[in-house]
Amino acid sequence: MQKLSQSLLQQGKRIGFVPTMGFLHEGHLSLVDVAKKHSDVAVMSIFVNPTQFGPNEDYERYPRDAARDQKLAQQRGVDYLWMPEVEQMYPAGEQTKVVVTELTRGLCGPFRPGHFMGVATVVAKLFHVVQAQVAVFGEKDFQQLQVIRRMVKDLLMPIEIIGVPTLRDPDGLAMSSRNVYLNEEERKEVLGISQAIQAVQALLKNGETQVEKLLAVAKSILEKSPHLKIEYLEIVDKENLEQIEKIDRPARILIAAYIHQKRFIDNGALE
Amino acid sequence: MQKLSQSLLQQGKRIGFVPTMGFLHEGHLSLVDVAKKHSDVAVMSIFVNPTQFGPNEDYERYPRDAARDQKLAQQRGVDYLWMPEVEQMYPAGEQTKVVVTELTRGLCGPFRPGHFMGVATVVAKLFHVVQAQVAVFGEKDFQQLQVIRRMVKDLLMPIEIIGVPTLRDPDGLAMSSRNVYLNEEERKEVLGISQAIQAVQALLKNGETQVEKLLAVAKSILEKSPHLKIEYLEIVDKENLEQIEKIDRPARILIAAYIHQKRFIDNGALE
Repeated sequence: MQKLSQSLLQQGKRIGFVPTMGFLHEGHLSLVDVAKKHSDVAVMSIFVNPTQFGPNEDYERYPRDAARDQKLAQQRGVDYLWMPEVEQMYPAGEQTKVVVTELTRGLCGPFRPGHFMGVATVVAKLFHVVQAQVAVFGEKDFQQLQVIRRMVKDLLMPIEIIGVPTLRDPDGLAMSSRNVYLNEEERKEVLGISQAIQAVQALLKNGETQVEKLLAVAKSILEKSPHLKIEYLEIVDKENLEQIEKIDRPARILIAAYIHQKRFIDNGALE
Repeated sequence: MQKLSQSLLQQGKRIGFVPTMGFLHEGHLSLVDVAKKHSDVAVMSIFVNPTQFGPNEDYERYPRDAARDQKLAQQRGVDYLWMPEVEQMYPAGEQTKVVVTELTRGLCGPFRPGHFMGVATVVAKLFHVVQAQVAVFGEKDFQQLQVIRRMVKDLLMPIEIIGVPTLRDPDGLAMSSRNVYLNEEERKEVLGISQAIQAVQALLKNGETQVEKLLAVAKSILEKSPHLKIEYLEIVDKENLEQIEKIDRPARILIAAYIHQKRFIDNGALE
């Protein structure tokens, strides 16, 4: 892949990159559309990165379907699909980590120790191999997107990061490879997450800017789902992800919740 | 610099890079010779990186002479000399670190907390900006060289690292920008370091492979310098920098010592 990229760059091609963990859905494929708009050659990677999963998380059972992914990627116009092995991404004796500090202290950070270090490290590696001029990420993992933006800015990486708004199923559920974990009843309860976000967005549009009040409404909606356990529910400054009391700057509502040990996250713009 | 590099790469040029902290001496300039041999365009950076100095170290008084450096670099055939500002290398709000773990636990690591994190982070940044195919470092900072090699390998950076043997003054002293700190008396004492290394290398050539014996000889030579305080004196495996008992693989002797609060390091191959 590195040699291919070098040859593409020498031909003056602009590379657009979509890093994924596979089990592709329309959300991923919409990132391909954006990558193609900003480049000559679209590269997608599929790599279920072990280091961003905690010991009790779903690395082993994370859904995988390489044959289906290949077909979907090709149909959507991906020029090169790269599926590295764990041993290629983590050479024997590897001991180098990329750490983004402040941005990873809150939200998912404390609940998934090491997760963002795993993400930043693997994304740096993917970037070094693919050498793209532009990379496209979904806003669904909003904290991840901001961590990657920060890493790129701080490490002076020669790549532009584009965030793409979350795609949702008709019922409002944010598209996610992990949605296959849900049965019908669970799905109904998980819909409380997107409903809470939409309700807060609507209240803000009507002029309510007090975070305390907005969070109370979100909480009351989430609590209508009896098996849904809130991990966090926060409204933060969009840039530094720090909690705010009043929506007087671009902000974001972020929610993480569990149902029967299955974890879901979602977020929405408040601006 | 990033734009210049991109334009050079699009022209099919191979970039050779020599990162330095300036106050150039023949050691640095020999790195330029090597970089030129392996590339079409030689880029040198001069950046006294604040994050690799501890609070009680010599960041403020580290010797600087930009005008002289520019002249020397140009005379030696450096095509582009890049002297970034601290604010360019560390954007406001920066919070991303590159950490190499095992290799930085010993030798200079415990005596200079944060030093190698500062080195790895700034070198990653420099590499991202210059986008060279090859970078050249002196073996004088041997642990640093191995840390950078490891970082490049682990993060899959598309760059080749070349290490160049230490240049020495006729009396044996390893060339270093910090040698200007020394008066004549101190210099004589510091020569004990290179003499100890040479003595150990000679003993090995004569068949002595017991590390304990080799270190005892080195120690006795260092102790002839009354004001020289040994910080560490170690013989380690060349690759993983772990202490060994017998020289049965490529090894290295590394010494750090102080004289009147001025710190000097040196090392030599044992293979």
